[in-house]
Amino acid sequence: MDKIFDYIDAREAEYVTRVMDYVRHPSISAHNIGIRHVAGLLVDMLDGLGFQTQLIETAGHPFVFGEYLVDPSLPTVLLYGHYDVQPPDPLEKWISPPFEPTIRDGRIWARGIGDNKGQHFAQLMGIEALLAVTGTLPCNVKFLLEGEEEIGSPQIADFVAAHREMLACDLVITSDGPLHDTGLPQVTYGVRGMASFELRAKTADRDSHSGNYGGTMPNAVWTLVNLLATMKTPDGEITIAGLHDPIIPATNAERAAVGALPLDVDGFMAELGLKHLDAPANVPFYDRLMFRPTLTINGLHGGYGGEGTKSVIPSEAFAKCDIRLVEAMTPDQVFDCVRAHVAIHAPDVEFIAHGGMLPSKTSLESPYARAITDGIRAARGVEPLHIPSAGGSLPDYVFTKILGVPAFVVPYANHDEANHAPNENLKLDLFHAGIRTGAAMLTKIGGQ
Amino acid sequence: MDKIFDYIDAREAEYVTRVMDYVRHPSISAHNIGIRHVAGLLVDMLDGLGFQTQLIETAGHPFVFGEYLVDPSLPTVLLYGHYDVQPPDPLEKWISPPFEPTIRDGRIWARGIGDNKGQHFAQLMGIEALLAVTGTLPCNVKFLLEGEEEIGSPQIADFVAAHREMLACDLVITSDGPLHDTGLPQVTYGVRGMASFELRAKTADRDSHSGNYGGTMPNAVWTLVNLLATMKTPDGEITIAGLHDPIIPATNAERAAVGALPLDVDGFMAELGLKHLDAPANVPFYDRLMFRPTLTINGLHGGYGGEGTKSVIPSEAFAKCDIRLVEAMTPDQVFDCVRAHVAIHAPDVEFIAHGGMLPSKTSLESPYARAITDGIRAARGVEPLHIPSAGGSLPDYVFTKILGVPAFVVPYANHDEANHAPNENLKLDLFHAGIRTGAAMLTKIGGQ
Repeated sequence: MDKIFDYIDAREAEYVTRVMDYVRHPSISAHNIGIRHVAGLLVDMLDGLGFQTQLIETAGHPFVFGEYLVDPSLPTVLLYGHYDVQPPDPLEKWISPPFEPTIRDGRIWARGIGDNKGQHFAQLMGIEALLAVTGTLPCNVKFLLEGEEEIGSPQIADFVAAHREMLACDLVITSDGPLHDTGLPQVTYGVRGMASFELRAKTADRDSHSGNYGGTMPNAVWTLVNLLATMKTPDGEITIAGLHDPIIPATNAERAAVGALPLDVDGFMAELGLKHLDAPANVPFYDRLMFRPTLTINGLHGGYGGEGTKSVIPSEAFAKCDIRLVEAMTPDQVFDCVRAHVAIHAPDVEFIAHGGMLPSKTSLESPYARAITDGIRAARGVEPLHIPSAGGSLPDYVFTKILGVPAFVVPYANHDEANHAPNENLKLDLFHAGIRTGAAMLTKIGGQ
Repeated sequence: MDKIFDYIDAREAEYVTRVMDYVRHPSISAHNIGIRHVAGLLVDMLDGLGFQTQLIETAGHPFVFGEYLVDPSLPTVLLYGHYDVQPPDPLEKWISPPFEPTIRDGRIWARGIGDNKGQHFAQLMGIEALLAVTGTLPCNVKFLLEGEEEIGSPQIADFVAAHREMLACDLVITSDGPLHDTGLPQVTYGVRGMASFELRAKTADRDSHSGNYGGTMPNAVWTLVNLLATMKTPDGEITIAGLHDPIIPATNAERAAVGALPLDVDGFMAELGLKHLDAPANVPFYDRLMFRPTLTINGLHGGYGGEGTKSVIPSEAFAKCDIRLVEAMTPDQVFDCVRAHVAIHAPDVEFIAHGGMLPSKTSLESPYARAITDGIRAARGVEPLHIPSAGGSLPDYVFTKILGVPAFVVPYANHDEANHAPNENLKLDLFHAGIRTGAAMLTKIGGQ
């Protein structure tokens, strides 16, 4: 390991120059700008490292796949990332232009440097270093790089299902997203899923006067208020029958991991200006984000919203909602429960299912979790945080549920990377630590 | 009476010509167009009838007051109306220009012909006929014509309070608004009041991601949903403590009157496209409009309202509401009750009181109710409907609560008069019947 770290450390400046060259090329999936050019760069890089490489066409932007198979008796790691980036707007908010990478304050500033080009480039550099020093890799490595992550990965589930053999592996590692705000390295083992839906109430053909019709014409906003009030108690407990049925409780290992996480609730509340956390009271902070479904009203609109007053009875109103799912809930199960609830409590209200995403969960006791942790410890010199689940949603289920393998997220970017925003950036030291981490994780997974 | 009716009937065409001359003059209070000119026309008309007339200046548009005092032992009637009209926009929707009165399909079409110039002009013509035929009036008559009704009568309460002696009377009659949709003549004895308020929730300094923050950050829309759900049951019963305390139950006479009203609930529901009436079920139709307060959400807005989905937790939301009041509730009492309710159930929610108006109620057993009914019966040959209360709100309380006298609304306009809309109109036969009715009511009130 030391030889490999020495090799990497000696090339710190060179890696920075090279990653800046890489992110200089726009690859904006939403606007179909530069996608094929950057996919081509990746094919060339993987080819150059000795990978068997393919550019796989889809109905949208292509996947880049490469594999370097050492020995069938060794574990196979699939490294997932995405080469597309968010649009850079609003351009006027950038201090330096998004596609002219600039070093300032110990960070590289460029669109895609954190999300995700700088992070998978670090993996590539770690592999390059392993090959340079040892002449081979410590385990079999597959690389899957997507060109549509920033537009919602519309094809990844079908793609993975259709390429099970090609993608067959023992585990998946994704290096994407920001680190915990302590800046400590971390391993994330899961994500919450999501089910998004809309409720639409229409009580009459037109709005009416609240005096002349008040008491006779039903009010679409009241219809939604009454319906929503049946779906969650003021104490914060979701009351939709069957919703919780599939839930797998947190394991002892997950509870222990959460218990060991740094926590600054006062700081969190101060940052958002909160007087109190959301209901229910007395639920531990990380339980709220990892182990419980939510029912969020994303928006509710009906009736008059202008200045002053208007004495109207609204005839139409809608609520847009999402439910975050924990293992083993599914969007279809959730939609069925909500649809049934609405049919009982407000049969005139229209239920519209929007998108959904399955949750994903990987065991903290997976042997690969230990190997990854050993790698991070070797590369960083500190113990990583173990985060059983992110609060948000990513399509990790394609690995855990379709490929049926454990999936780990090991982010390299600073928590203030400003992904999806102007002035995206990556700390130089974290980029370098990522290269070391990538090399070390593969080494430990290979059993060395 | 027959001589007076004969006199009126002989002049049917002349009255039509004269009312068309009157409504030809715009008097738009909202735009301050023509107000003083029309007020001057009224002063001249009242002077010409032998009234003691005054144009009384205010901070806004002037009141026109006239009195014709016959004998202090006779009753004194105050006739209230307004000489201002709604703006005529949208002009392109008018079939004939709003200030070029036109006869078509048995109706006069012009802005103000129904609301209210044609109706108080009918009163004036009735008085003119009485004077022409008998040389005097059957009772003392005061005329109060306002120039700001269409902008919400902002000064009438203070004006009436400051001119109690000048306005002293035994009863008030207002001929304004449309008739019941049966077209039968009617007497309305009261109106619901109103208290308008806003609830504003702010749970955090900014919106947040429903995944990364879901379960931790409180949701402003949920805060309002939960608060509103404590204010009224899904069965439609308002649960705000103290709100109902002042309510005076309907009298037997009111119940009997309501029982005699024509009712076509199926037609009402078909007109609005309703599947059912508002909760609570099994409350009689007119009870809903006359004898019960309402709690209407005029509008509720918070969070995302655009196309598709957005996984956001809204930090701010507001609800605009009004409560319709029945005798003897008051806006101040209602505001106190709601404010106290909010302080208990959602102390972080801001309560903002907007405008209010007192309800008004006149006894169906008032001796003047009998005189008015006798007059209508004599003029129209049919029995009028007796409507204990309108569902909407008018400042009738200035007469019942400030002057302390019974107040009656006796409309002359067809139910489809299109007041406040393009193509306002008044049926010729109802205008003529209004002149007869005005003369007959004064005659009966005078005891003849």
